[in-house]
Amino acid sequence: MPPDSGQARAVVDAVLPVVDGGRFAVKRVVGEPLAVEAHVITDGHDQLRVMLQWQAEGGALHETEMQHLVNDVWQASFTPQAIGRGFYRVEAWVDHFHSWRHELLRRVDDEDIRIAALVGAELLEQAAQRAGAGAGEGPAGDGRHLAEWAAQLRQGAATQPFDGPQLKALALDELLARVADRHPDRSLAVRSADLPLQVDRERARFSTWYELFPRSAGTEPGRHGTFADVEARLPYVAEMGFDVLYFPPIHPIGRDKRKGRNNALDAQPGDVGSPWAIGAAEGGHESILPELGTLEDFRRLVGKAREHGIEIALDIAFQCAPDHPWVKSHPQWFRWRPDGTVQYAENPPKKYQDIYPFNFETEDWRGLWSALKGVFDHWIAQGVHIFRVDNPHTKAFPFWEWCVTEIKREHPQVLFLAEAFTRPKVMHRLAKLGYSQSYTYFTWRNTKQELTEYFTELSQGPGKDYFRPNAWPNTPDILNEHLHGGGRPIFALRLVLAATLASSYGIYGPAYELMENAPRSPGSEEYLDSEKYQLRHWDLQRPDSLRQLIAQVNHIRRRNPALQQLQNLRFCHTDNEQLLAYTKRDAASGNTVLVVANLDTRNRQSGWVSLDLAALGLEPDARFHLHDLLSNQRFVWQGAHNFVILDPGQAPAHVFRVTQQLQGEQDFDHGL
Amino acid sequence: MPPDSGQARAVVDAVLPVVDGGRFAVKRVVGEPLAVEAHVITDGHDQLRVMLQWQAEGGALHETEMQHLVNDVWQASFTPQAIGRGFYRVEAWVDHFHSWRHELLRRVDDEDIRIAALVGAELLEQAAQRAGAGAGEGPAGDGRHLAEWAAQLRQGAATQPFDGPQLKALALDELLARVADRHPDRSLAVRSADLPLQVDRERARFSTWYELFPRSAGTEPGRHGTFADVEARLPYVAEMGFDVLYFPPIHPIGRDKRKGRNNALDAQPGDVGSPWAIGAAEGGHESILPELGTLEDFRRLVGKAREHGIEIALDIAFQCAPDHPWVKSHPQWFRWRPDGTVQYAENPPKKYQDIYPFNFETEDWRGLWSALKGVFDHWIAQGVHIFRVDNPHTKAFPFWEWCVTEIKREHPQVLFLAEAFTRPKVMHRLAKLGYSQSYTYFTWRNTKQELTEYFTELSQGPGKDYFRPNAWPNTPDILNEHLHGGGRPIFALRLVLAATLASSYGIYGPAYELMENAPRSPGSEEYLDSEKYQLRHWDLQRPDSLRQLIAQVNHIRRRNPALQQLQNLRFCHTDNEQLLAYTKRDAASGNTVLVVANLDTRNRQSGWVSLDLAALGLEPDARFHLHDLLSNQRFVWQGAHNFVILDPGQAPAHVFRVTQQLQGEQDFDHGL
Repeated sequence: MPPDSGQARAVVDAVLPVVDGGRFAVKRVVGEPLAVEAHVITDGHDQLRVMLQWQAEGGALHETEMQHLVNDVWQASFTPQAIGRGFYRVEAWVDHFHSWRHELLRRVDDEDIRIAALVGAELLEQAAQRAGAGAGEGPAGDGRHLAEWAAQLRQGAATQPFDGPQLKALALDELLARVADRHPDRSLAVRSADLPLQVDRERARFSTWYELFPRSAGTEPGRHGTFADVEARLPYVAEMGFDVLYFPPIHPIGRDKRKGRNNALDAQPGDVGSPWAIGAAEGGHESILPELGTLEDFRRLVGKAREHGIEIALDIAFQCAPDHPWVKSHPQWFRWRPDGTVQYAENPPKKYQDIYPFNFETEDWRGLWSALKGVFDHWIAQGVHIFRVDNPHTKAFPFWEWCVTEIKREHPQVLFLAEAFTRPKVMHRLAKLGYSQSYTYFTWRNTKQELTEYFTELSQGPGKDYFRPNAWPNTPDILNEHLHGGGRPIFALRLVLAATLASSYGIYGPAYELMENAPRSPGSEEYLDSEKYQLRHWDLQRPDSLRQLIAQVNHIRRRNPALQQLQNLRFCHTDNEQLLAYTKRDAASGNTVLVVANLDTRNRQSGWVSLDLAALGLEPDARFHLHDLLSNQRFVWQGAHNFVILDPGQAPAHVFRVTQQLQGEQDFDHGL
Repeated sequence: MPPDSGQARAVVDAVLPVVDGGRFAVKRVVGEPLAVEAHVITDGHDQLRVMLQWQAEGGALHETEMQHLVNDVWQASFTPQAIGRGFYRVEAWVDHFHSWRHELLRRVDDEDIRIAALVGAELLEQAAQRAGAGAGEGPAGDGRHLAEWAAQLRQGAATQPFDGPQLKALALDELLARVADRHPDRSLAVRSADLPLQVDRERARFSTWYELFPRSAGTEPGRHGTFADVEARLPYVAEMGFDVLYFPPIHPIGRDKRKGRNNALDAQPGDVGSPWAIGAAEGGHESILPELGTLEDFRRLVGKAREHGIEIALDIAFQCAPDHPWVKSHPQWFRWRPDGTVQYAENPPKKYQDIYPFNFETEDWRGLWSALKGVFDHWIAQGVHIFRVDNPHTKAFPFWEWCVTEIKREHPQVLFLAEAFTRPKVMHRLAKLGYSQSYTYFTWRNTKQELTEYFTELSQGPGKDYFRPNAWPNTPDILNEHLHGGGRPIFALRLVLAATLASSYGIYGPAYELMENAPRSPGSEEYLDSEKYQLRHWDLQRPDSLRQLIAQVNHIRRRNPALQQLQNLRFCHTDNEQLLAYTKRDAASGNTVLVVANLDTRNRQSGWVSLDLAALGLEPDARFHLHDLLSNQRFVWQGAHNFVILDPGQAPAHVFRVTQQLQGEQDFDHGL
């Protein structure tokens, strides 16, 4: 026990939020308040003062006073102003001045008040000394004021005849108490551990992703698409309202063991192979497939995209085709079999002979780690600040913790999306160790109960401070059974759900807006004629395209801050299993959105929706406006229970903006 | 990052149970299994091996293999065999032998099997080396067996024509796999933090307390009782089945500012004062009030009690009467007021001029801590191993953590009960920092909902691994309103509830068994003519005494291991708000108790009780026996729902032992 700790009586029993006792960081975005709770106690009846302190790495220490809520829980908030790493902690001490004041309030006997005045004078003289010594943060006159106050108390205590009530009033002077509060005796303060905080830019929480294969962006069927073609596609993507455009790997594709169309074992001449079979004679993870263009073309595309408000994100897949240059130059990074060949990826009896995984148990792990981080560094230098990482759960976790932490320290604007469709604890570990966003099970959550349970867990569960979900109705790997053979109703529904349940979501297009719905075989989640193995040509102008709906939904997301958050999600009761209803409310602006979705894509459904009016800031009996931002219809409701009808032929959902109807007041926003 | 950690791929994400991330110890008693869960993952499909390790302080390290349950949760148990401090932790590694075997199971191609055999041979040769080097724990022949096995695999792989199935069978040999498992490659093992464990003797969990004032143990009214009188009272206490007999402070009582009867400010001549006003000319916390007897008498009483299976527990109250010798010898341990007097205890406007608290902020805190610990040491030397600590929450928490930890290290058999009737987080902190048992809110929990919620929290809530409740229907300070003017039904009910809900409980007697029910004033929780301020004389032979019922209940507790635990408590649904039903089952013996209590002490109540048959080890349709251990009635029930009638004039509750009716089998126990 440290020799100076024996006198300190305050105890910080817990500080929340905290991830694994401070082993990992709590995550917030710039401008997003962090509400901190501390459980602070001391022995007996003495009064505590409790401070929330925080500091950005390399910045100044800030401090704000915490308020006692109830049951020894103290609370305060701060709002991080810059991206990067930092910490917060709680400091507390038994405050003799507060204790003295607290007791004095209840004193009635003259003699007690006289003694208390003398005790107080001593406390104030000490405070005056601290103020005089410049330790305080208050104005220069504090020391003098406190000393005068002390003198007055001493004088009052000595005056005959003694006037108890007058002396008590002087001792309890509010203004002087505030001066004294600026110069507390913190010599016996105790402090919690520093709890790490990761502050990201807003896009970590609110992002709208569009994935496309650049090689399929060509304007004529059969011609290999280029970065220039993608550049021409940017207005199309921007009009739909996406702010992240992400590509599967853009590197040279291996020729050795190349897979053919529909994952055929043997490629035919002209087959383009899978972009995830990375590396060939032309280069590896830091090179570009020549058919797509040059590094200069890529950089130009990154710049053009930015002009459209779009960031280019890259898929980083740490694995090699057999002809990746590293296989020869760094054989020690692979696992070798007794027959002198490299161990390819397999999950018996499945074999992936075109893919060599890295051996993270290599003796040269330092060299491997450094090279892999170098891949990110290379693309960051080209202007890429968002990475979707392929199967991070098949690479060693200690590597990721180091790599992501190092990169974010050097480039705090960089974001990482973990493509780990795997078991919950694995996904959570990746989020804890630093991934900014995570793919989810959204694709496989379809019923009211499934969606309610899953998104309640995501928004309120133990991962809410570090696991940021990104919801995808489809990906090049996942054409969910619910979409097989489906048409506009199911594609529209899943889009609206993803876009309004999650604050980050994405689609793999143009397959999604063109409602590509054929699996390679019945029950398979693979697309027929998947772009993973061949070029595709898409008719973007098809009249049945969902692009207008997507544009509208993404516009609604941008205009309604409530939809840019997740922890504010609350499900509402409905009396129909096919009606899923939920609200989101932005505390700062009061912006409130109510979504009522019809999960039945074939039949009209109706029922009663029950709202928690108080939680939405609505008076119990007042009428309130609902503006359906999808249909542009307007409704007036009253009370908690209201009736809804939805026809899947018309719309998958109501997306209401809810406003209290106040006399003479205009709507929050008349546009849309 | 340590230079040797880069290759290790196993991750121990969590180990449970854990208290505040390992800051405080999990508690168990000797012979009570500790089931440990670990969340362990690695990248990819490789197989893990996970070990639970534990060690008593100064003992050998033990290890047992953990089993994978589901969803990356691993489980194993161990049973501590000795009291004292220890730790447990989890060690895990990616096991190449298991991974190889796991993959081989699914291999079908001959060439794959051939390569796998060669890979396996290499793994086995390495294992043989480890076995030969004596690193393994297996029999001496292991190294030779493994080397032979490797040679056979190599031979099989080279044989022409090649027989895949035969070689696969040889490679998958179960017996040899078990030999190989004894010599794993643990060079890349990772380890959780050491999590502290406090192992106490059984009485920490299962104890039955009786409190009495020795000075009221005299045989004639008006005569001050002595330790010799208490000695004569031992058979009475033992017959009721108590195993802890605890006394309020037995030290000299201050004369200065002594309180009179019923807490009168001025004592009258002959008034004996409050035992909590500790210290006078005769001595302080290490002395005995002369009227009670000598130290020799006390030691004799401790020994006699032990012969009756009873431990003497002392109340330790760290506060001083104004004439306590320490006030003069150690003035620096008290807070002095400007008028030159010592600050007495007060909570304005209430004043306790007869009590001086210690100042834990004293510069001489080391001296104070040492003296206070010395008090425990002194009484431990007299044979006292259980202490009830008065108002621990008004003394500094860091002191308690040090004091309790030090004492338990020197005397691991010592137990501490915290008398902290205060706010939840304060009570929990005391339990976390080392108190063996804690008083509870039981006294103020009376309705079905209150009792269900509170005991669910106590048995299943976050404190279950460190907070051991001790339930008291009354104390010298608390005559709950429900007992005011009450008779046998309410006294019997509260006794049965305390004794069967909690595994530790106690009563303050003879006030309890004689149903003392008069408050000092209406609504007050103080007893009229409280023993705290005067001698009392009790007629123990009163025919309406509850002593027989108490004896019976305590006998039932001793005979039924299910009642000696708390975490096994489960409430059952009943359709009557006045019927409270709950079960306890001892996993080791199968002993099962069902209590159905009638909370209405005036009216007969009846209703349906619903059991979770599976949880009680009962077949869904089988008939089962219920033996009411209170009334000695026997019932046969079938199915989950059964009807119960209880008349408060007859019995407060059914306390059933439940046994499955098996053909030809006798009851678990025919005696009570």
